[in-house]
Amino acid sequence: MRIVVTNCNTTQRMTEEIVLGARAAASPGTAVTGLTPAWGPESAEGWLDSHLSAAAVIDALRTYEGPVYDAVVLAGFGEHGREGVRELVDVPVVDITEAAAHLACLLGRRYGVVTTLERSRGQIEDSLETAGVARNCAAVAGTGLGVLDLADGERTRAAFRAAAERVRAAGAEVLVLGCAGMTGLRRSVESVGEELGLPVVDGVAAAVRLAESLVALGLTTSRAGSYAVPLPKRRVWGRP
Amino acid sequence: MRIVVTNCNTTQRMTEEIVLGARAAASPGTAVTGLTPAWGPESAEGWLDSHLSAAAVIDALRTYEGPVYDAVVLAGFGEHGREGVRELVDVPVVDITEAAAHLACLLGRRYGVVTTLERSRGQIEDSLETAGVARNCAAVAGTGLGVLDLADGERTRAAFRAAAERVRAAGAEVLVLGCAGMTGLRRSVESVGEELGLPVVDGVAAAVRLAESLVALGLTTSRAGSYAVPLPKRRVWGRP
Amino acid sequence: MRIVVTNCNTTQRMTEEIVLGARAAASPGTAVTGLTPAWGPESAEGWLDSHLSAAAVIDALRTYEGPVYDAVVLAGFGEHGREGVRELVDVPVVDITEAAAHLACLLGRRYGVVTTLERSRGQIEDSLETAGVARNCAAVAGTGLGVLDLADGERTRAAFRAAAERVRAAGAEVLVLGCAGMTGLRRSVESVGEELGLPVVDGVAAAVRLAESLVALGLTTSRAGSYAVPLPKRRVWGRP
Amino acid sequence: MRIVVTNCNTTQRMTEEIVLGARAAASPGTAVTGLTPAWGPESAEGWLDSHLSAAAVIDALRTYEGPVYDAVVLAGFGEHGREGVRELVDVPVVDITEAAAHLACLLGRRYGVVTTLERSRGQIEDSLETAGVARNCAAVAGTGLGVLDLADGERTRAAFRAAAERVRAAGAEVLVLGCAGMTGLRRSVESVGEELGLPVVDGVAAAVRLAESLVALGLTTSRAGSYAVPLPKRRVWGRP
Amino acid sequence: MRIVVTNCNTTQRMTEEIVLGARAAASPGTAVTGLTPAWGPESAEGWLDSHLSAAAVIDALRTYEGPVYDAVVLAGFGEHGREGVRELVDVPVVDITEAAAHLACLLGRRYGVVTTLERSRGQIEDSLETAGVARNCAAVAGTGLGVLDLADGERTRAAFRAAAERVRAAGAEVLVLGCAGMTGLRRSVESVGEELGLPVVDGVAAAVRLAESLVALGLTTSRAGSYAVPLPKRRVWGRP
Amino acid sequence: MRIVVTNCNTTQRMTEEIVLGARAAASPGTAVTGLTPAWGPESAEGWLDSHLSAAAVIDALRTYEGPVYDAVVLAGFGEHGREGVRELVDVPVVDITEAAAHLACLLGRRYGVVTTLERSRGQIEDSLETAGVARNCAAVAGTGLGVLDLADGERTRAAFRAAAERVRAAGAEVLVLGCAGMTGLRRSVESVGEELGLPVVDGVAAAVRLAESLVALGLTTSRAGSYAVPLPKRRVWGRP
Repeated sequence: MRIVVTNCNTTQRMTEEIVLGARAAASPGTAVTGLTPAWGPESAEGWLDSHLSAAAVIDALRTYEGPVYDAVVLAGFGEHGREGVRELVDVPVVDITEAAAHLACLLGRRYGVVTTLERSRGQIEDSLETAGVARNCAAVAGTGLGVLDLADGERTRAAFRAAAERVRAAGAEVLVLGCAGMTGLRRSVESVGEELGLPVVDGVAAAVRLAESLVALGLTTSRAGSYAVPLPKRRVWGRP
Repeated sequence: MRIVVTNCNTTQRMTEEIVLGARAAASPGTAVTGLTPAWGPESAEGWLDSHLSAAAVIDALRTYEGPVYDAVVLAGFGEHGREGVRELVDVPVVDITEAAAHLACLLGRRYGVVTTLERSRGQIEDSLETAGVARNCAAVAGTGLGVLDLADGERTRAAFRAAAERVRAAGAEVLVLGCAGMTGLRRSVESVGEELGLPVVDGVAAAVRLAESLVALGLTTSRAGSYAVPLPKRRVWGRP
Repeated sequence: MRIVVTNCNTTQRMTEEIVLGARAAASPGTAVTGLTPAWGPESAEGWLDSHLSAAAVIDALRTYEGPVYDAVVLAGFGEHGREGVRELVDVPVVDITEAAAHLACLLGRRYGVVTTLERSRGQIEDSLETAGVARNCAAVAGTGLGVLDLADGERTRAAFRAAAERVRAAGAEVLVLGCAGMTGLRRSVESVGEELGLPVVDGVAAAVRLAESLVALGLTTSRAGSYAVPLPKRRVWGRP
Repeated sequence: MRIVVTNCNTTQRMTEEIVLGARAAASPGTAVTGLTPAWGPESAEGWLDSHLSAAAVIDALRTYEGPVYDAVVLAGFGEHGREGVRELVDVPVVDITEAAAHLACLLGRRYGVVTTLERSRGQIEDSLETAGVARNCAAVAGTGLGVLDLADGERTRAAFRAAAERVRAAGAEVLVLGCAGMTGLRRSVESVGEELGLPVVDGVAAAVRLAESLVALGLTTSRAGSYAVPLPKRRVWGRP
Repeated sequence: MRIVVTNCNTTQRMTEEIVLGARAAASPGTAVTGLTPAWGPESAEGWLDSHLSAAAVIDALRTYEGPVYDAVVLAGFGEHGREGVRELVDVPVVDITEAAAHLACLLGRRYGVVTTLERSRGQIEDSLETAGVARNCAAVAGTGLGVLDLADGERTRAAFRAAAERVRAAGAEVLVLGCAGMTGLRRSVESVGEELGLPVVDGVAAAVRLAESLVALGLTTSRAGSYAVPLPKRRVWGRP
Repeated sequence: MRIVVTNCNTTQRMTEEIVLGARAAASPGTAVTGLTPAWGPESAEGWLDSHLSAAAVIDALRTYEGPVYDAVVLAGFGEHGREGVRELVDVPVVDITEAAAHLACLLGRRYGVVTTLERSRGQIEDSLETAGVARNCAAVAGTGLGVLDLADGERTRAAFRAAAERVRAAGAEVLVLGCAGMTGLRRSVESVGEELGLPVVDGVAAAVRLAESLVALGLTTSRAGSYAVPLPKRRVWGRP
């Protein structure tokens, strides 16, 4: 089985980190192909970036010429595009935002999301709401760190700990890593989870396993209604 | 006062219709500038089109070089992009989806949306939900007509009537025209509204008046939180 | 165009302040007529006052003998009566509570209301809920000041600042002035908004502009269902 | 124990019917005093009537000079005024709308309300919502009969049966009589309930028993917050 | 009239306390029979205990051989079993969780629950939600005391006071005693309510009065739908 | 990896069917152990059965003496017990009700559940609600067939088709098999799904894959809050 994992931004290094995380989570027989959009923002932090990213990710999949794949994982936490990709491809599509929430719901009565910038809170809340899994979300909290700052392990860890304590105080019994870029930091943040006695769900890992599950069960996106095949028409993908 | 009205697709003829509708609704002192994205879908019908459209509309505004404007009206019913545009520009931004709903709430206890294709229902419901005005929406119903079919007045009218009866049966006391392309048909559909005894709200007209209201009251988008100015970074707008 | 603006209490001085605010917000061609109920409470602070006020305001409009008008603005924040007035008159009716919320939703992802007494919170929450715009209300906070205390600018400003900080902490990105009597204080409280970096929406101003918009677009209350014309019957308006 | 039962309209005959229903439901030691407002509408059918009725009922209680009472029952289904009365008196206040819903929740997973005119649906839905008991309401359906038509037993029964079938189809397992005037018809409508296999809850009976329960347990309205004692001020109750 | 009050655990002493509370709340003509399950947990503190308790309570009622009864009160706050008992018996069934909430809704705009262990919060929230009365619940707070610790009056009182202050800060205007074992402490906790100016509702007392009300009005559980009579089949009640 | 799959009833033949379904869905390296409660109902159809079943399933796991296992799958659709089992065991616990909903949310915007008897609707709705995945459930519909009737393939297929059409009309884009006993019928009902153009999710298969995913990712139930280890105390499991 092959899963294409799309980064939501153009930073190749981040795609690599995400692929590492995806591979670590995947079953033995699963191949992971990373896909970096040819255009878009270098990191997605806010609505404008998210809208730009959604079109670029769809374009990347539309023009993808690699080996045949069985599922798509969208590795942008809280980013747009999930529904459009479901229209585009014939294989299951799993977004890391919803994926993390689905697994978190199985582990505790309420979960909390720890993300990068506070400004992303709204996007994440809306994404969870429309995916149908916001009901058990106790809180979304920002660490105040930008996506590209996440390389600095110590500062990230402290900020993650502070935000994690806030969502726990709001009732969260499970932590969700609200950023694909955090995947590489999994080990250090898991130690925060251990300190607080809370499981930590990484969206990339969750999405890979959910995508595998759908493929294994022969399930794919319904074409009845919302996610029908796009109508044939003239579309221009970027400034001509 | 000048309002830029953005079409969500690349069809110039539709921009012109929208501009006509906007001008008919605007106050005497208001100039309306139509803006057609340089790229994107020729019509927006589904999530994929909507994601593509959002990026193209933002790009059109980002690279706009016309006269200074005081507000933006986004004339794509149920389409993405509203939040990204709010980050981008310093003037008020009104989306026709939310605008129609806001005025409809003032006219009856429940409103219903009549749109083109049934597949757009999900997008519209999500757009109303996140805009905070879904509570009094009784139903969203499709006419089964594509955006570009709307030129055919008689067929549109019959389909609109059937869909209008469905939302009325679901409790709607006010009708919302769920498509910017319907603006040119305002007169004929208003006659359906009259037959059924229901006011008909056109999103373009509503948005123009709401935009004027915000400008007149000196109000603009809050920068505290969700709609902060986009962070400076490298962004590529379309296939390089 | 003429708009009748009804005060919810019998204090003539407050009607005058409201009319000043309404005139400042109105378009050049709009005449504003203030209407003070002939009976009712001298200020509306609580449910009992609100119920009394609703009947008195309806009676004032029922027996109004002034120049013909095109719309009604109900200038009692959180007060009852809106639906009954919609049944009574044939022109659009806009309540300042819902009006402020409608515009606030266009300016930020969540708004907060700052009102006079803490005891009014429940009424305001219920009024926003049934108007269909509570979803994006982050919090309603009281300043602890009675309606008639609002003349004291300095004390009001400090109390307003404290309450504004509370709603901002709860997620509000926009402030709503939760009291018609605050209209006269617009300038001083706007400075608090500026300090906090939050737009401030005044319900009277918002309602005047929304009423103008509905009139300009030829829209009025739906008679289908909830707001049908009152049945003819014997009614006695006050102790015989 | 003495309970004052207020009619929401000025029709003395209806007060008498309500009092009969209340007495039939009351415990042996409970005295029931009917109270007809000295002003207001002759029947309450719509928002305007409801707002007028609320003020008149509060005035009736404010000026009541009969024997001391232990609780108030407000016998207007879906009518306003409940919260204002809670501020006014020091004894428990039970509105028949909420009372019927509270008991109905104990008898089945969903209940449905059958009321007089379809136009009352909105008021009833709002009343249940703000009382906190709308969650398990499957539907509110009108019989198409006015309050004063209810004397005609046969027509009422047929209309009640049709509306009852509609709420049952919507999931109701329990019927609520959505009108105080229906009390006198209890026996005939109970036969419809029997035919359909659904318990029938009458709001007047429910409210009397709930009021008795609160009194017996020494409970009364909380003064902390919403229902604080009205502030002393000048109030005029009706056209001077 | 006879009411059977079931303890949710096997501790006979607690059944006795509950029966005392029930008798103190009952009308003169009502006989109260306490029922202690023959098996189950010695106290119910958590989901596992609750599931075990539900089966044991149903079994106790199934095999009950005492005098005929008219209603059942289930005296386990937040415990499972309510719906199964409704299927089993032909008389009204009132659970103390929902009962307390129903009466609390009549006394203030929001209520708060004070319970024993923080871990019970989830069960109570779910129980209120499915009973249809969670809407006006401001908060559920734990005292940190186990059910069997409640004998120690002074420590209980202090912990109750702290938790009560927390729910009041969250908006509660009424307190609900979230534990059947608290019944015996009614007097001391009522003094906390008095200090804070908040009415205190005891679930056992509330349920007894509601059960009496249903019986007096000739109402019992609907058999249409959810609570139909259990199908005849082989069932084994405990390890053979 | 070993997964214990518990049947919710005592019918050994049904356990075998469930185990076949689980094995068909499991990864190559996963062993499946079926567990039939030693007591409880022979089929679970209603709340009473569900409460009895919950205790019996917990007891079966409590006294289980087979090979060590890595996860538990609870194969009773809409049945109680999930939370109690989470307290009891140290490995991940996945209930087939929530599992099916989680995967269904990834395949379409709304899903619908087709179950056996109409009376189970309430349990299923409540189970989805408290699991946090009810938001995107369009409808739950019964086939009118009892659990033990499901052996009759042709009748089941026709009834399944009728119920599937009802949930599709309510907006479902994905079907969920609302019964563990349906697993053996997977192939025939999948043909109904194909006819209607809707994916069909089987809860047992979904739960097995989700359980595998949690184990593979090293995730297990949070002990912080709701699902803490049961307190040590005296518990009696069934009539002594």
